[in-house]
Amino acid sequence: MKVGVLTGGGDCPGLNAVIRAVVRKGVQEYGYDFTGFRDGWRGPLEGDTVPLDIPAVRGILPRGGTVLGSSRTNPLQQRDGIRRIKDNLAALGVEALITIGGEDTLGVATRLADEYGVPCVGVPKTIDNDLSATDYTFGFDTAVGIATEAIDRLHTTAESHMRVLVVEVMGRHAGWIALHSGLAGGANVILIPEQRFDVEQVCTWVTSRFRASYAPIVVVAEGAMPRDGDMVLKDESLDSYGHVRLSGVGEWLAKQIEKRTGNEARTTVLGHVQRGGTPSAFDRWLATRFGLHAIDCVHDGDFGKMVALRGTDIVRVPIAEATARLKTVDPALYEEVGVFFG
Amino acid sequence: MKVGVLTGGGDCPGLNAVIRAVVRKGVQEYGYDFTGFRDGWRGPLEGDTVPLDIPAVRGILPRGGTVLGSSRTNPLQQRDGIRRIKDNLAALGVEALITIGGEDTLGVATRLADEYGVPCVGVPKTIDNDLSATDYTFGFDTAVGIATEAIDRLHTTAESHMRVLVVEVMGRHAGWIALHSGLAGGANVILIPEQRFDVEQVCTWVTSRFRASYAPIVVVAEGAMPRDGDMVLKDESLDSYGHVRLSGVGEWLAKQIEKRTGNEARTTVLGHVQRGGTPSAFDRWLATRFGLHAIDCVHDGDFGKMVALRGTDIVRVPIAEATARLKTVDPALYEEVGVFFG
Amino acid sequence: MKVGVLTGGGDCPGLNAVIRAVVRKGVQEYGYDFTGFRDGWRGPLEGDTVPLDIPAVRGILPRGGTVLGSSRTNPLQQRDGIRRIKDNLAALGVEALITIGGEDTLGVATRLADEYGVPCVGVPKTIDNDLSATDYTFGFDTAVGIATEAIDRLHTTAESHMRVLVVEVMGRHAGWIALHSGLAGGANVILIPEQRFDVEQVCTWVTSRFRASYAPIVVVAEGAMPRDGDMVLKDESLDSYGHVRLSGVGEWLAKQIEKRTGNEARTTVLGHVQRGGTPSAFDRWLATRFGLHAIDCVHDGDFGKMVALRGTDIVRVPIAEATARLKTVDPALYEEVGVFFG
Amino acid sequence: MKVGVLTGGGDCPGLNAVIRAVVRKGVQEYGYDFTGFRDGWRGPLEGDTVPLDIPAVRGILPRGGTVLGSSRTNPLQQRDGIRRIKDNLAALGVEALITIGGEDTLGVATRLADEYGVPCVGVPKTIDNDLSATDYTFGFDTAVGIATEAIDRLHTTAESHMRVLVVEVMGRHAGWIALHSGLAGGANVILIPEQRFDVEQVCTWVTSRFRASYAPIVVVAEGAMPRDGDMVLKDESLDSYGHVRLSGVGEWLAKQIEKRTGNEARTTVLGHVQRGGTPSAFDRWLATRFGLHAIDCVHDGDFGKMVALRGTDIVRVPIAEATARLKTVDPALYEEVGVFFG
Repeated sequence: MKVGVLTGGGDCPGLNAVIRAVVRKGVQEYGYDFTGFRDGWRGPLEGDTVPLDIPAVRGILPRGGTVLGSSRTNPLQQRDGIRRIKDNLAALGVEALITIGGEDTLGVATRLADEYGVPCVGVPKTIDNDLSATDYTFGFDTAVGIATEAIDRLHTTAESHMRVLVVEVMGRHAGWIALHSGLAGGANVILIPEQRFDVEQVCTWVTSRFRASYAPIVVVAEGAMPRDGDMVLKDESLDSYGHVRLSGVGEWLAKQIEKRTGNEARTTVLGHVQRGGTPSAFDRWLATRFGLHAIDCVHDGDFGKMVALRGTDIVRVPIAEATARLKTVDPALYEEVGVFFG
Repeated sequence: MKVGVLTGGGDCPGLNAVIRAVVRKGVQEYGYDFTGFRDGWRGPLEGDTVPLDIPAVRGILPRGGTVLGSSRTNPLQQRDGIRRIKDNLAALGVEALITIGGEDTLGVATRLADEYGVPCVGVPKTIDNDLSATDYTFGFDTAVGIATEAIDRLHTTAESHMRVLVVEVMGRHAGWIALHSGLAGGANVILIPEQRFDVEQVCTWVTSRFRASYAPIVVVAEGAMPRDGDMVLKDESLDSYGHVRLSGVGEWLAKQIEKRTGNEARTTVLGHVQRGGTPSAFDRWLATRFGLHAIDCVHDGDFGKMVALRGTDIVRVPIAEATARLKTVDPALYEEVGVFFG
Repeated sequence: MKVGVLTGGGDCPGLNAVIRAVVRKGVQEYGYDFTGFRDGWRGPLEGDTVPLDIPAVRGILPRGGTVLGSSRTNPLQQRDGIRRIKDNLAALGVEALITIGGEDTLGVATRLADEYGVPCVGVPKTIDNDLSATDYTFGFDTAVGIATEAIDRLHTTAESHMRVLVVEVMGRHAGWIALHSGLAGGANVILIPEQRFDVEQVCTWVTSRFRASYAPIVVVAEGAMPRDGDMVLKDESLDSYGHVRLSGVGEWLAKQIEKRTGNEARTTVLGHVQRGGTPSAFDRWLATRFGLHAIDCVHDGDFGKMVALRGTDIVRVPIAEATARLKTVDPALYEEVGVFFG
Repeated sequence: MKVGVLTGGGDCPGLNAVIRAVVRKGVQEYGYDFTGFRDGWRGPLEGDTVPLDIPAVRGILPRGGTVLGSSRTNPLQQRDGIRRIKDNLAALGVEALITIGGEDTLGVATRLADEYGVPCVGVPKTIDNDLSATDYTFGFDTAVGIATEAIDRLHTTAESHMRVLVVEVMGRHAGWIALHSGLAGGANVILIPEQRFDVEQVCTWVTSRFRASYAPIVVVAEGAMPRDGDMVLKDESLDSYGHVRLSGVGEWLAKQIEKRTGNEARTTVLGHVQRGGTPSAFDRWLATRFGLHAIDCVHDGDFGKMVALRGTDIVRVPIAEATARLKTVDPALYEEVGVFFG
């Protein structure tokens, strides 16, 4: 049996660990052959493949990124995209496809299965941890670790100088990275996309923190947005939807805090640093087990499923169901963490 | 209301995060006063206390160890131990006790509650992750991360030299650290206390690994033991129970491999390095949430309970039940991971 | 004999290691008493002191920041500043002063010695490594390590996506951090304050890099400036002196690259993260030895001197001479490193 | 012109950085071709080569080990070794040879140059930092960093428990790693091969440390030896030369401390972990500059030289002279550091 593998969407520490586990178990236990597709859906769309066997996956476990390459190519937006993929798979003799990706990548897999009967197994991937049906996605723990270490370092400066330190972390639609790293790093304010923030409230926390001990650290997700009321400021760096534009919400917020509280503020924008480098041990464990269970799905003929983490178990859930809803931060959890604000 | 807090048993990254969360929420939300007891059960036994308020817990989140100190003092082994504790708590006006510790520490809490009606809430702590009723305990992720980083480094040498590299990690009764770090580090052999190992089998994996690529890395839990059959070697470093003595199982195994395969072998013994230093972001998150929920238990009058992690939720379970059974590595999980051996 | 100690200017990993070494050797070998002054020159100016003995310096070696606090208070800008310091020292019985700081802090020490005969010994401190007379200053190695790790992580993303990654690092007047971290991190372009850069040249490197392998990483010191010719762009984020304003040179450059090459560009601004956290082993070694030799200067009555690193030796140089000239990157060294550009 | 490159001896973080720099500058600036020899002197001895061009060195900067492989093959111990090398170089058209290695590797280069006129340039490599003529060798800073981080972690446990913690680090003949990591990690005892230690003195320091604050940390180089007087103990783990055998000096010392002071002692043996993983930024900088200057030597026809660090400059010294004398720890420096013992 020949099995295809592809990785789609943004890169995420742990992708290589999944690929390695799929191939190791597939070859050793089940005697499968593998075809790697290059750059996500572009690979099967254009028939662009790479050899994928045990030597090809040696040494990739600790490496970030993906040896298969990735892209955001969406075959649903191309004429006959799905059909061309189906034809290419057939021509290559690929009988099952393991797709590692986020909502978009897995959405294509669903269509491919439903419309053309191509047997697909999904492995969830989002650094933002915003996918329902799984407790965690790999890459998230690594990103949280990197952001937490940065916040740890800022405490040193906060202790010595009277400056507000603003850290902008990843998270366009969900505040998981901000919440976890902010809590783990002992931040004094955490702002997430799920709840529009009140700049005045932020300034109140900043001021009370200065009184209580040393300088405050504000963690803000890149997708966090100020409340309507804040827009009367007519700050030109807010676009017409109220999204903070140009230099990012971190820079914008730092200026607002300076203007309103009179304290100096400095910004750190971690950017892509958060998704690079070697995966944490947790992410390697999770990604490897996802890979082992994905190839088991193929072996069991259990298609249309996605592997997922529930507690310490790896389970199988229907792909379609799994991607249906964005997993955002529950207001109750945000409130639980709020005891550390200010 | 006055609440006592103590930490017992071996140190573990995350203890301070629990203490901080308990105090922050207890003071800010519920208006409680706190009494810190020094060195585990020795504190309430001898009435040895430390002040515990918000200033006392500032800055301790990222620090390993415990600001309260710890010990293995067991009041059950002292004349009138439990009664003296009860009297000291009464004299100090402590109305509830949060005990952070492993099986022994929590066992005393159960007795205290059952026999004298002292209201106790437990927070589980074991770096070995071998406590039932919770998916993970804090400290474990940090230890796994440290061991994984060490294994990562050994790959460099393994690639350049023809030497077997043996790493001995923590785990007397359960192989969780060996299993997780061995998998995450891409080890070629993982040996755990739950399954006696066959030295010949280990040598077969070592030899086949040399043939397939570069030098093998063997991860062995300190409590792993060879099979009966291996003892005909009458190696004097095995004691009468078959436990490897003196220089540890790592050194013993390295010598066996050298003798039997003719390959040089080198040993790394990580020792206490694994339980030191700053907690990982995951452990800070878990420990903090344990602390927040433990003080909620006190507030709810829900005593005799231990907080535990289930998936992404913190739940409450009866202390007695939680400590009843050691959580060891399931044979099925060990077999799942075995695909990477050799 | 009573010796005063103060730390001035921006915080820098290693300050605590100096303080600890001064006190440990001063007390143990020479039997001195110490007075710590709080917040740089503000301490002696206002007579604000902290106790400084062996218990006070225990455990501070690995901690960033300074237990004495710091400030940019400059007594030369205050009426009678120098005289008030002299009087306060006399009143406290402080017979010698160890001043740990940069150009400004050490400049005051020179005046104090010259005008009032107060015996001073200097310890150089600048995270930017821009002080003549010493091969390296502590804190620099730590900052370079942090920036290098960030660049390492960005390579992962650069390999997977077609995006230019711009990293802005510290260095207002000297490009040492950019040069060392850029070289160590394998950056494709390094821009330093010592040489105005040509945006077109940067874009040429960016484009050629894309052709040769994967996406380019551009490291830019915060004080780097574009050439005159670039200013016809009339980008409003350049101020009237040609300094890049507001969102920093990193953001500005990323936008220029996007505009001119058509490639997406993303920015990471490390900010204060670079000066926080525990000092590297190299910085702890250097800072400790600086401290040991500074107290030896006091013991030898060798005042007006600053300790400095030459090769592997700690030497003594006149303070005045040491701070006379900014140590910038030699054009020949910049050219040597240029072989890796593009 | 065709230039050969080889790496000999034990692996050391930074080898790949040298190779990359040599090739990048050699190809880009001077238009040279390169031949990589596999496994140190075994390569030219057996004519075993690998292609070495710019694509071959891409991405290797941050990787430990050596892409050329290494070995301890010594052609001086083989019949006609030197002549066979000379013939193979001639047959391959290799006109100059860059040899990266320690005393042994560079010794062969000297013979090759002296006896057969083969133009050689040396790059010094020893993780132990024990080579004269250069301030530092690459790999050393990385090893010190790893050992220091381990010591840092042990402080956590030392604070909580009454156990002596012994850490055995690398260093057979020179105590540089023990000295630097012990100082940087705040160890209470540092034992080096240059000075035989007195077990009773060690126990005195251990005991005084317990009295003064918390549990002591003892750093011992693997080549450190007890004094003659200690041998009346007739401990069988000392061999006939007084070297500590079998389980290493760390284990031996821990047992001695337990026996003599009555305190529990635990040992960490870092082993090969110290020489693995990514090089520190300092080592990448140093190794890269060594590589750039080595290829300049070739270009200048300046053979028989070794590159070396003096202060912040890279200089050239005669190979023979450079390897003549082992660089050991100066007694004065050891005494300087001794202020922190006990």
